[in-house]
Amino acid sequence: MKRFFVFLFVLFAVGLVSAGDVKPKYVFLFIGDGMSTPQRMIADEFSRSIGNGQLAINSLPCHATTRTRSSNSLVTDSAAAATAIACGERTINGRLGISADGKRKLVSLAEVARDKGKKIGIITSVTINHATPAGFYAHRKSRSEMYAIGLDLIASKFDFFGGGGVAKYDDRKSPLYKGSIYDLAAKAGYKVIGTRQELLALKPGDGKVLAYGVKSTILPFAIDRRDDSIPTLAEFTAKGIEMLQDSPNGFFMMVEGGAIDYAGHANDAGTNLREVLAFDDAVKVALKFAEKHPDETLIVVTGDHETGGMTMGFAGTGYSMYVDRLKGQTRSAANFIKLFKEMRKSDPKLKFDDVKKLLCESFGFKFEVKTPEILAHEKNPKKYPLKDRDPMILTAAEVSQLEAAFKDKKETALGVTAKKILAAKAGVGWTSGAHTGLPVLTTSQGVKSEIFTGFIDNTDIAVKMKSIF
Amino acid sequence: MKRFFVFLFVLFAVGLVSAGDVKPKYVFLFIGDGMSTPQRMIADEFSRSIGNGQLAINSLPCHATTRTRSSNSLVTDSAAAATAIACGERTINGRLGISADGKRKLVSLAEVARDKGKKIGIITSVTINHATPAGFYAHRKSRSEMYAIGLDLIASKFDFFGGGGVAKYDDRKSPLYKGSIYDLAAKAGYKVIGTRQELLALKPGDGKVLAYGVKSTILPFAIDRRDDSIPTLAEFTAKGIEMLQDSPNGFFMMVEGGAIDYAGHANDAGTNLREVLAFDDAVKVALKFAEKHPDETLIVVTGDHETGGMTMGFAGTGYSMYVDRLKGQTRSAANFIKLFKEMRKSDPKLKFDDVKKLLCESFGFKFEVKTPEILAHEKNPKKYPLKDRDPMILTAAEVSQLEAAFKDKKETALGVTAKKILAAKAGVGWTSGAHTGLPVLTTSQGVKSEIFTGFIDNTDIAVKMKSIF
Repeated sequence: MKRFFVFLFVLFAVGLVSAGDVKPKYVFLFIGDGMSTPQRMIADEFSRSIGNGQLAINSLPCHATTRTRSSNSLVTDSAAAATAIACGERTINGRLGISADGKRKLVSLAEVARDKGKKIGIITSVTINHATPAGFYAHRKSRSEMYAIGLDLIASKFDFFGGGGVAKYDDRKSPLYKGSIYDLAAKAGYKVIGTRQELLALKPGDGKVLAYGVKSTILPFAIDRRDDSIPTLAEFTAKGIEMLQDSPNGFFMMVEGGAIDYAGHANDAGTNLREVLAFDDAVKVALKFAEKHPDETLIVVTGDHETGGMTMGFAGTGYSMYVDRLKGQTRSAANFIKLFKEMRKSDPKLKFDDVKKLLCESFGFKFEVKTPEILAHEKNPKKYPLKDRDPMILTAAEVSQLEAAFKDKKETALGVTAKKILAAKAGVGWTSGAHTGLPVLTTSQGVKSEIFTGFIDNTDIAVKMKSIF
Repeated sequence: MKRFFVFLFVLFAVGLVSAGDVKPKYVFLFIGDGMSTPQRMIADEFSRSIGNGQLAINSLPCHATTRTRSSNSLVTDSAAAATAIACGERTINGRLGISADGKRKLVSLAEVARDKGKKIGIITSVTINHATPAGFYAHRKSRSEMYAIGLDLIASKFDFFGGGGVAKYDDRKSPLYKGSIYDLAAKAGYKVIGTRQELLALKPGDGKVLAYGVKSTILPFAIDRRDDSIPTLAEFTAKGIEMLQDSPNGFFMMVEGGAIDYAGHANDAGTNLREVLAFDDAVKVALKFAEKHPDETLIVVTGDHETGGMTMGFAGTGYSMYVDRLKGQTRSAANFIKLFKEMRKSDPKLKFDDVKKLLCESFGFKFEVKTPEILAHEKNPKKYPLKDRDPMILTAAEVSQLEAAFKDKKETALGVTAKKILAAKAGVGWTSGAHTGLPVLTTSQGVKSEIFTGFIDNTDIAVKMKSIF
């Protein structure tokens, strides 16, 4: 009996101590590029407004407020941010996996994980040699050395690359040029995949994979997808998990919602939030995996910086905000501009009336139709009060702004004006076309997630993850 | 021996279980009005830039992202926010301690604490019957019923009120008027204190206290303080603790940094951050108390909403932000406008040159002095390159803007232009003169602080605190 209690006690004590030492076998790091709290919350409120409830990224229990500064600015760029998050050391803006003085090659947490026998997946909605993914495998003085970063990608020997294409994959101007990155990857043993069918057909045991959605550029914006010919970020994530999970030492997977940042730079609110939703869908895939492996999985969701100085309130809407007014936006402002250019090219005499339909379809605007009710109201407002006016009906002032922008030779003007009007209607503010210094929110769940709490620096993510591996 | 192990084991198990039931004797709730992450971080970065390191409010280990919406808007006002935080139920903007339908009187966590025998302190840097403090003791359909809220203050029988004065304390237009609130408070047994000397002289055992810094308005902005004739928020907090800590059941104390919001509405960055620093000083007083009572104290720091759509980046500064450029601001824009008005009143022929000194003193600007170096540079820029230009020197365009604003009959114009120029130099953006829907950050430390983590609603603060009492 005595022995039994000794046994119980020891079991209890050991259990408690070792609980602190359990390490996750499967580690996910999700990074929303240009995604801080405003981006997360506008998408969240939008999701709630259409009845889909809270985002998965916001449902994770552990919260850490995360400073994003680089070594030379309170406002980081994505290369310095990726270096901080991946390698645990601040560097100057523009640099990748190299110290601020340009002298030391840093080691990324993905490299540490690889050397500990974990399989590695790197997935993004932008190009796979863009700054954020590159931070996990590249070591270059400048993020603009795209071809050289492509070479680093191959040299990393990571197991699964997926997402957008390799930018400048055949850059003959690079001093390091020795052929297309895709060809070199194939020679180095990568299975190079370029279609959705091939991606879905991949099976564990197929070896290392480099899967691109679009050969040399980013995946289409979520808001602009009209068919399923190109895999989504969530599909890349699901396939990545399938390919890596047979690893006896588990895996590390980085998934970037890279185009959130693009829509932030463009101050395009409706496009921005739909990129966050697409990113959230990818996180949901990991959460589903975690349901099956609750005692072995860690999921961390962060951002690398805020983009655009996005706010949840605008001078024009006072003590109100209407995210639901972004519901009618069906394409990015960039895509609208492209279509408008095509229209004008095919008909140089195009009139403002001719683009009204496209404006309405793209941004959810309505042009006022003079119904008998409105005509009566205009004659005698007191006798015939109007019922609640649809806020999506353009005011006379808004129509004038659009007409003036239409006259601009550059089609961009109309797109910019349209997205500004929509942002004002929704109550979304923007203060910059660049990044800002706002901290980001890091949320997490699973094994060891408790260490991602409180106020942390972006570098702490690497330090903490390395300590786990 | 067997018994010893049984004893040890039981002790161990009981210890673990009961640890979860320990409740804090001393509970602090700090609320920064209009303080979300941008306000916290700009003040934090400023503090770091002058060598004072991280703010105390940001050093607390537990973090929760806190939604602030009211029952009728994504953007709350301070009354609905105070009701949510204090009572745990959302109501419509403008309402205090009454349900959204206007029918039910809600119960605040301070009232619960009082009824459980705790002493209660309510402190603020704005008027003591302003929406945020009022949320803890008042039950009125409108926050504008200032006199009636003053009556509720007295009826609450809370132990210590401190901060700004009672607004409209002698409002004869109120249908409930029955004398000055101060007289009625004195009649009800409150010691009414109106000077710093009297406040500092208070001793435990002096009974219930109503201590005002300025009879019917808010405490001066921290940036505008020129002497110590009026107590600071930190001094009110220290005295409050001294007066309440003899309570055998402990205390609950709410301390509001109320004027952060005022500076937010004014889009006055330098004033805003100094209000956050003054608020931080008050939190430090509580942290010092907690050092002596670590096993009995809970400190929670939150905001009620964001004000101004403040961002940490501005179109003009690109990938940079310079909070240190706010160092030279020595008075609020409001105070500058007041002084400028006085100058113009005493000299109607005042010229722009006459206000240059005041502009420089107030905002840290410098007007360019044509040194031989600059003159040489202007003649031959290549041969005589200028060394780094002091960013606080006004550009020709900025001087023109100020001159144009000076000509405006309303003195406000010059103050507004000056603060806009300063914000642009520092890289601080603003998108609204009202509140926004950005969530706030709740940080906490001490007994039970672990329940203030993850994504929460402002109402959860009341629910969680009530569960503690």
